[in-house]
Amino acid sequence: MQRNRPHDKRVLVIGLGRFGSSLALELVAHGWEVLGVDSNARLVQAYAESLTHTVIADSTDDEALRQLGAQEFSRAVVAIGTHLEESILTTSLLVDMGVPDIWAKAISRRHGRILQQIGAHHVVLPEHDMGERVAHLVSGRMLDYVEIEQNFALGKTRAPREIIGRKLGETRIRSQHGITVVCIKRHGEQFTYATAETVPQKGDIVIVAGKTDDVEKFAELS
Amino acid sequence: MQRNRPHDKRVLVIGLGRFGSSLALELVAHGWEVLGVDSNARLVQAYAESLTHTVIADSTDDEALRQLGAQEFSRAVVAIGTHLEESILTTSLLVDMGVPDIWAKAISRRHGRILQQIGAHHVVLPEHDMGERVAHLVSGRMLDYVEIEQNFALGKTRAPREIIGRKLGETRIRSQHGITVVCIKRHGEQFTYATAETVPQKGDIVIVAGKTDDVEKFAELS
Amino acid sequence: MQRNRPHDKRVLVIGLGRFGSSLALELVAHGWEVLGVDSNARLVQAYAESLTHTVIADSTDDEALRQLGAQEFSRAVVAIGTHLEESILTTSLLVDMGVPDIWAKAISRRHGRILQQIGAHHVVLPEHDMGERVAHLVSGRMLDYVEIEQNFALGKTRAPREIIGRKLGETRIRSQHGITVVCIKRHGEQFTYATAETVPQKGDIVIVAGKTDDVEKFAELS
Amino acid sequence: MQRNRPHDKRVLVIGLGRFGSSLALELVAHGWEVLGVDSNARLVQAYAESLTHTVIADSTDDEALRQLGAQEFSRAVVAIGTHLEESILTTSLLVDMGVPDIWAKAISRRHGRILQQIGAHHVVLPEHDMGERVAHLVSGRMLDYVEIEQNFALGKTRAPREIIGRKLGETRIRSQHGITVVCIKRHGEQFTYATAETVPQKGDIVIVAGKTDDVEKFAELS
Amino acid sequence: MQRNRPHDKRVLVIGLGRFGSSLALELVAHGWEVLGVDSNARLVQAYAESLTHTVIADSTDDEALRQLGAQEFSRAVVAIGTHLEESILTTSLLVDMGVPDIWAKAISRRHGRILQQIGAHHVVLPEHDMGERVAHLVSGRMLDYVEIEQNFALGKTRAPREIIGRKLGETRIRSQHGITVVCIKRHGEQFTYATAETVPQKGDIVIVAGKTDDVEKFAELS
Amino acid sequence: MQRNRPHDKRVLVIGLGRFGSSLALELVAHGWEVLGVDSNARLVQAYAESLTHTVIADSTDDEALRQLGAQEFSRAVVAIGTHLEESILTTSLLVDMGVPDIWAKAISRRHGRILQQIGAHHVVLPEHDMGERVAHLVSGRMLDYVEIEQNFALGKTRAPREIIGRKLGETRIRSQHGITVVCIKRHGEQFTYATAETVPQKGDIVIVAGKTDDVEKFAELS
Amino acid sequence: MQRNRPHDKRVLVIGLGRFGSSLALELVAHGWEVLGVDSNARLVQAYAESLTHTVIADSTDDEALRQLGAQEFSRAVVAIGTHLEESILTTSLLVDMGVPDIWAKAISRRHGRILQQIGAHHVVLPEHDMGERVAHLVSGRMLDYVEIEQNFALGKTRAPREIIGRKLGETRIRSQHGITVVCIKRHGEQFTYATAETVPQKGDIVIVAGKTDDVEKFAELS
Amino acid sequence: MQRNRPHDKRVLVIGLGRFGSSLALELVAHGWEVLGVDSNARLVQAYAESLTHTVIADSTDDEALRQLGAQEFSRAVVAIGTHLEESILTTSLLVDMGVPDIWAKAISRRHGRILQQIGAHHVVLPEHDMGERVAHLVSGRMLDYVEIEQNFALGKTRAPREIIGRKLGETRIRSQHGITVVCIKRHGEQFTYATAETVPQKGDIVIVAGKTDDVEKFAELS
Repeated sequence: MQRNRPHDKRVLVIGLGRFGSSLALELVAHGWEVLGVDSNARLVQAYAESLTHTVIADSTDDEALRQLGAQEFSRAVVAIGTHLEESILTTSLLVDMGVPDIWAKAISRRHGRILQQIGAHHVVLPEHDMGERVAHLVSGRMLDYVEIEQNFALGKTRAPREIIGRKLGETRIRSQHGITVVCIKRHGEQFTYATAETVPQKGDIVIVAGKTDDVEKFAELS
Repeated sequence: MQRNRPHDKRVLVIGLGRFGSSLALELVAHGWEVLGVDSNARLVQAYAESLTHTVIADSTDDEALRQLGAQEFSRAVVAIGTHLEESILTTSLLVDMGVPDIWAKAISRRHGRILQQIGAHHVVLPEHDMGERVAHLVSGRMLDYVEIEQNFALGKTRAPREIIGRKLGETRIRSQHGITVVCIKRHGEQFTYATAETVPQKGDIVIVAGKTDDVEKFAELS
Repeated sequence: MQRNRPHDKRVLVIGLGRFGSSLALELVAHGWEVLGVDSNARLVQAYAESLTHTVIADSTDDEALRQLGAQEFSRAVVAIGTHLEESILTTSLLVDMGVPDIWAKAISRRHGRILQQIGAHHVVLPEHDMGERVAHLVSGRMLDYVEIEQNFALGKTRAPREIIGRKLGETRIRSQHGITVVCIKRHGEQFTYATAETVPQKGDIVIVAGKTDDVEKFAELS
Repeated sequence: MQRNRPHDKRVLVIGLGRFGSSLALELVAHGWEVLGVDSNARLVQAYAESLTHTVIADSTDDEALRQLGAQEFSRAVVAIGTHLEESILTTSLLVDMGVPDIWAKAISRRHGRILQQIGAHHVVLPEHDMGERVAHLVSGRMLDYVEIEQNFALGKTRAPREIIGRKLGETRIRSQHGITVVCIKRHGEQFTYATAETVPQKGDIVIVAGKTDDVEKFAELS
Repeated sequence: MQRNRPHDKRVLVIGLGRFGSSLALELVAHGWEVLGVDSNARLVQAYAESLTHTVIADSTDDEALRQLGAQEFSRAVVAIGTHLEESILTTSLLVDMGVPDIWAKAISRRHGRILQQIGAHHVVLPEHDMGERVAHLVSGRMLDYVEIEQNFALGKTRAPREIIGRKLGETRIRSQHGITVVCIKRHGEQFTYATAETVPQKGDIVIVAGKTDDVEKFAELS
Repeated sequence: MQRNRPHDKRVLVIGLGRFGSSLALELVAHGWEVLGVDSNARLVQAYAESLTHTVIADSTDDEALRQLGAQEFSRAVVAIGTHLEESILTTSLLVDMGVPDIWAKAISRRHGRILQQIGAHHVVLPEHDMGERVAHLVSGRMLDYVEIEQNFALGKTRAPREIIGRKLGETRIRSQHGITVVCIKRHGEQFTYATAETVPQKGDIVIVAGKTDDVEKFAELS
Repeated sequence: MQRNRPHDKRVLVIGLGRFGSSLALELVAHGWEVLGVDSNARLVQAYAESLTHTVIADSTDDEALRQLGAQEFSRAVVAIGTHLEESILTTSLLVDMGVPDIWAKAISRRHGRILQQIGAHHVVLPEHDMGERVAHLVSGRMLDYVEIEQNFALGKTRAPREIIGRKLGETRIRSQHGITVVCIKRHGEQFTYATAETVPQKGDIVIVAGKTDDVEKFAELS
Repeated sequence: MQRNRPHDKRVLVIGLGRFGSSLALELVAHGWEVLGVDSNARLVQAYAESLTHTVIADSTDDEALRQLGAQEFSRAVVAIGTHLEESILTTSLLVDMGVPDIWAKAISRRHGRILQQIGAHHVVLPEHDMGERVAHLVSGRMLDYVEIEQNFALGKTRAPREIIGRKLGETRIRSQHGITVVCIKRHGEQFTYATAETVPQKGDIVIVAGKTDDVEKFAELS
């Protein structure tokens, strides 16, 4: 069977709203073949040239999904955002078609839970996730932040006075602050990885790794 | 003047939908004082106990904003998501009140541009940003992904065979793949930073840093 | 734990529309204790006296469901008919609460499938089921009809001339028509079971059992 | 006149929603000729191939009904479900055309009463009827249930211990429980009629006939 | 039984729109006792002082109708104008309560027919009736017109030259025009009956009786 | 100028709802030429064959009215019923075009007053007028009733016992009851005028003229 | 009678939208007593303190208007903007109450015409008037413009080179350009009237009077 | 670059409602070339012949605006009135295209402020401006009024008794009333400028200039 080849680079993206279209365009930019589907003709037309294929179709209609070959994809993204019902109906159909890797966007935690109960393999909550991430930037100390796992995060911040002008290997930030500097960016240069020999300068930007609270506190030193 | 103390830990969050509430709860969890505002009484009630203060108010009304002391905050987040008009009116009022650090959520690039033209200091597009981020996970190789800057990303992936059983310092992944392993997670353990002495085992999860394409390609080895 | 006692006679009925209320009233008439729930105050009030308990509540709200003790029932009926979304959200919550016997009404086959995917134990489609059942009555020969299983049905019809005035055991309707007369009703009397000795009279009503087509054909003799 | 031939197998089905379409498909499956009518083009198209004839028409328009020959049918089903007004207007027209056998679906008892006052010959209330029927299954003892007449029902249930391993003619279930076993289904086999010689086994399914309360109580023995 | 006293002067008027309120006020002005009912509180309040009794009630609710004693009236007017459904439901309930004299307003001929099928005793179509009546006035010759029966009408018109200054008994309008002058109104006086001795003057207004066409033609002489 | 010929038999009827269409059809039946106008294509089509001319047009558009020659009619009826605004705009345009005889239907007394202020020559209130008229019939004594003028009415009623079997000229109904019998209808015959010699029989129907109260009271004798 | 005193400084303003409220506030600022009326409670509250009196009332209700004494005002402004119907009903009532000076805002020329037909004394069309006025400013030469009468306007513009440094009495702008400089404003000063002795400087602003075209052309010199 | 020629007489008018169309027609009447744009086809068609060019387009769509060459205009008017959002989106696009002279109509002061924050060069508030202007006319003394600047106005009024029959140069209205008569209109003639020699007659109309309060008071003398 065609579908289960793990390395085929084809994705079915259902829903070409803000989330779905951004995802689809990014995939195309990285060399993937994307079939974009939406029931809204205007949206389909807007992405007709930038995606590999686009189709106007009602994804809650079993027959329509089959005609565009949904059952042959090994990866599908249900990016329907506003209508809970359409999102659930579409996901249910893809599960019954046996699509092996289904990503679905949810608009609430319960919606996410239902998608899992139905059989979606991955559930994404953009508004919640971004809300939490941006919370760490509002303080003005952290320039970017991402929680990699429960209680382990990466933070981007200005190098604090404490580590300026000294080799990282000689500072005690690991023992004192519980964090590690993993990357550094000199003014006007690109980011690169940091080593024990790296000597941060004033104005450098660093990426640090550690427990979420430790990363948070370290950023406040800057 | 009270407001400009850079370290006061108070934030005004207008709009308690999915994005705003997630952001507000995360801030409270990190010890910030959050005044949550929404015109929807049901939403305000839902967060009345979990946020520091909550108020039902129409944020497009100059007088209402003043009565809740908006002009004394040094940080405000306009998390109004669905109504372009309310988002713009509220942001315009906060700009005219001189709030020095305004974050605003946009639902389209043009909306974001208008918020900037009006004077918002930071604009966030959750749906677009998450769409792009999730695009990198759909392949099934990358477990998490975040673009720290134009053309510099961090990726979470399973340790590929090529680096298993060997000290990182002795592999040539930096020269050959352009990436650095910055953190590692043993099966059943927490994440920790990686050093040149670290020897990845089968099943370990690593975080690698590098140019976006290099991170992308490295994940495909796994 | 209270809930799993197989013989407790308590049922939670969510949704007091036509289907839900008919079901709830029938249960009460047979000595069951019914907690009727609906978000519509008018409906709740209409059944306040005829059901054991009635509550106005939004069954899509986790907290609301818990406050009325949903998790302690061993049987629940989700009789929400018009709003797919509410039906699915409510069922999802009951499944996560571990209610061991959930009946849910669906308005389409896909809706029914989703309720099963989520974890409902029994799904009912009143409109479809009644549509098929009534089809057998439209001919005017059959007075009632019910398909007990795939290809086995019971039909109520007037006794055809062929069996009138003869002991059932002496007719050959089993061999010739593939059906058995199981009950009979004399004019002005109640139904009773039929035996080989029973002699149908003109105007008697009989209930016959057999393969669906055979039942159908036998009715046409009358 | 063409119409009154009692054995013509033609039915006019107005309204192709869930009830109407299920009924129409079942009739076609049994060799009837069905003319399906709906004002909704999408529904008509959906059944264009599976029904004998389908027409898009407004059944509340006298002229439209005549053009499709409604007055020549001897049987019509008004399966319009949601709009009381359309259901009543259509039925009124069919009555005035003299259609001799009109079945109409009602959504409430008063709606049903009005259809009778206007002159419909049979009124069906799917939601109410199914609600009552399902009430008997919720207990978990009864596998199916149908009330054939006021106070006479058939129930499908697992054979209770009391009758297992004994000839039915030798048990005293008729005298003690007031019910008769009319059909039986062995594990892995089809249903068949039961006789005095039948010996139920553990796991057999039986259909019993009797007064509604007696059938109900017998099922609880299982 | 209280109700059937033919001379009790009590009327139940359901619906206090333009037709219903005009009718109710006219009845009150002639000494009748009117119970005015409407589901619209604003309308009920508007007539609270001018009608004998007024009640806010939903006339489609059996219980509500009984509580206001509908079943004890010998005359009821269903003056519900805009909602076919409410008009039909209310009329059906009154019929089942056995109200012996039910007047109902219809908004279309089919609506009127349904009200009759249900059992209303008199049906009124104000818009149609007035449309036909006004048609006779548009010509500018007829000042008022009413068709008393199929092909017999009364018309109000200016006295034509032909009959001015002559005793009516001596003119030949009956033989020539087929009409009779039955009433006359002198300038500045009241109407009175006309006799064979009456001599119409210029400017007098007459009421003539005759076949509809003859009345119509006679008016054109003026 | 064409328009002012008093005897041209052409009428412009704007609005083909229940009132307008009834009026237009009645005019056509009496030999008038009617141009029927409505913005609703379905209504225009419904009367395309029965009226002299029909046009789909927006009568609130000056240009549209002119193109169909509204300014050349000597009589126009604005039968727009539901939308106050359209009724007023249309009437205003006809007034400015100088149409000499404008009839307009109003839905409330204030609406009627505005139509007069704008310049309509005749205003009709069908619902109010019929409401008042029907009030006189509800009693069950009067068979028809029309108020010809303030305090002068004609009533149709069964001949009361008091006048049966006697020459009308010999009864004292004029002096005692203040009314005159002007027409009479024998059972199975047509109406005809009554004279002093007329002898009413039991079951005859009479039309009486007189003051409104006297007519009302006389009917109660029957 | 109280009302007709020409110098009483009381105005009734009905409609407190943008036009009505601006007008009312300007009147209050000039010492007038204003009764502001609107059916929208929020608007009434917004102006409760800045206007002399404010009342929530439905101005289309005769009784409501009387209760607030509308009939005693000698001046009323109907500033109802969006609903044609309310504007017309209110104006009609004020006309019938005999208010001697009624100003009414119209949203279209036909609306304006109807208000006049009904009897409004002055009609204002803000959008049309401002549209025409702003047209003269878009060119960038004219700083303000107002047409005082058909073909006579005042324009505000920068003093053109041609008149700079010369006494106005000695320039020939009247004969050559057909315009007169009537006022002048020196940089940093207030406007004042211009005389023959006035010598405009570079950067001065002048107000000129003349025929509309001449004013227009003169502005292009600047 | 084409655009910045100050004297090109081309204007882009977006929004052809009452304000926009009046403005556009006035510009065309003065010889300008106007491109009128609206998303409403009906409006565009209405002005297709009277404006230089008209296009149906969605002005909130970047691409659509570019296709009609918006970026090449040196003047644009955003006359979108009812939808705040469209007005803001369109203005934002024109600002980013670098159109050097953007006029925008606002419907509230905050809307106006946002348009300025975004970068509109001129903001017009028709309803507010006309409201204030009309306030000065309601008194009945002033015939027209325009505030040229903060505290400097022109007023049109009847010549008061005080100045009738005397040379303006000899009256003391400048010193006593603070105003100057700048123009005068004899009965039956056109307006002309006034000089010191002008002798106003009874019934003449004058335009006076001065401080707003002084103009106001002077009008009350008339």
